[in-house]
Amino acid sequence: MQVVCLDLEGVLVPEIWINVAERLGVADLRLTTRDIANYDELMQTRLGILAREGIKLTDIRETIQQMAPLPGATEFVNRLQELAPLVILSDTFVQFAGPLMTQLGNPTLFCNELVIDDEGTIHGYRLRQQDGKRRAVEAFHSMNLEVIAAGDSYNDVSMLKEANSAAFFRAPDDIASQFPQFPSYTDYEQLLDFICECIGT
Amino acid sequence: MQVVCLDLEGVLVPEIWINVAERLGVADLRLTTRDIANYDELMQTRLGILAREGIKLTDIRETIQQMAPLPGATEFVNRLQELAPLVILSDTFVQFAGPLMTQLGNPTLFCNELVIDDEGTIHGYRLRQQDGKRRAVEAFHSMNLEVIAAGDSYNDVSMLKEANSAAFFRAPDDIASQFPQFPSYTDYEQLLDFICECIGT
Repeated sequence: MQVVCLDLEGVLVPEIWINVAERLGVADLRLTTRDIANYDELMQTRLGILAREGIKLTDIRETIQQMAPLPGATEFVNRLQELAPLVILSDTFVQFAGPLMTQLGNPTLFCNELVIDDEGTIHGYRLRQQDGKRRAVEAFHSMNLEVIAAGDSYNDVSMLKEANSAAFFRAPDDIASQFPQFPSYTDYEQLLDFICECIGT
Repeated sequence: MQVVCLDLEGVLVPEIWINVAERLGVADLRLTTRDIANYDELMQTRLGILAREGIKLTDIRETIQQMAPLPGATEFVNRLQELAPLVILSDTFVQFAGPLMTQLGNPTLFCNELVIDDEGTIHGYRLRQQDGKRRAVEAFHSMNLEVIAAGDSYNDVSMLKEANSAAFFRAPDDIASQFPQFPSYTDYEQLLDFICECIGT
């Protein structure tokens, strides 16, 4: 039996922080792991910016509520779920993902959590675990499941390497070209064909 | 972060083999683990009956296509998926579950598989793994997820014991009374309240 593991941001929904930065008009919230490679340092910087600007969870959620999944993503998820069990593995936070997950039909999502007080101030974050995407694939292997994975960026590579079959989806060329062992797709029809081939249907 | 693990038959959908036996009018297909405790022996008996009666997968699937989830189950699944990631852990076969899973909105399901030839004759079955429900809970723990589980019968007990929080749902009294450590619920509203309490919402 197989399970399909997909990244969320860039694969099914837009990059959340970048959209939040644009919609709230706070330019330095656009920083990503390409600017600050260390994730904890990046998150501490983001939390500092939120504190400086007085931005609370409700502000961010209102912004996210105006966002939509990538065109075609909801239909892709629906079709995929008819073929195989799906688990979305993401580095985002459950409090951010909610409004977008609803639009995707609430597929199963394992991700991280923000630490928030009663007034909605974001004080920190809790990683589910270090290298959580790769370790999820290992855990699925321990359930005797074959894993088919797709993602778009560096933080997906350890998941793709651990999976039985894997592909990039809308990865920047400079990332995809570093890992030529993974096919690279840009539309959902191609990705669905790849998954069907892996499943053998 | 939490994950909710639910049994399928008896919790969200009717018992599949019993319905198939009734609808196909083959009385001895009604046998369950209460009649033949050894699962492999039970399955070999069932496969022998299918061969004797000339029943193919298409016959069984046509029967299952006339079945529906238990009343209220689809709405329960929808509400639950807004609250927490859901994985259904079942001893049924992916080829049987399909038509019912579609009606439930295709939530994530890990189960077993039938071995079928090109003509639709069922030749055998492949367990995902021995004690697969308990081992799935262990795997979720290795992902640093807390597990909330619910099931209705003996084959769920090792899953319930391994979970962080667990309840019976519509379990026969004689089973529930043997494991008084687990609360026992009969309607979805109660089970949802229990799950909300475990999640802390």
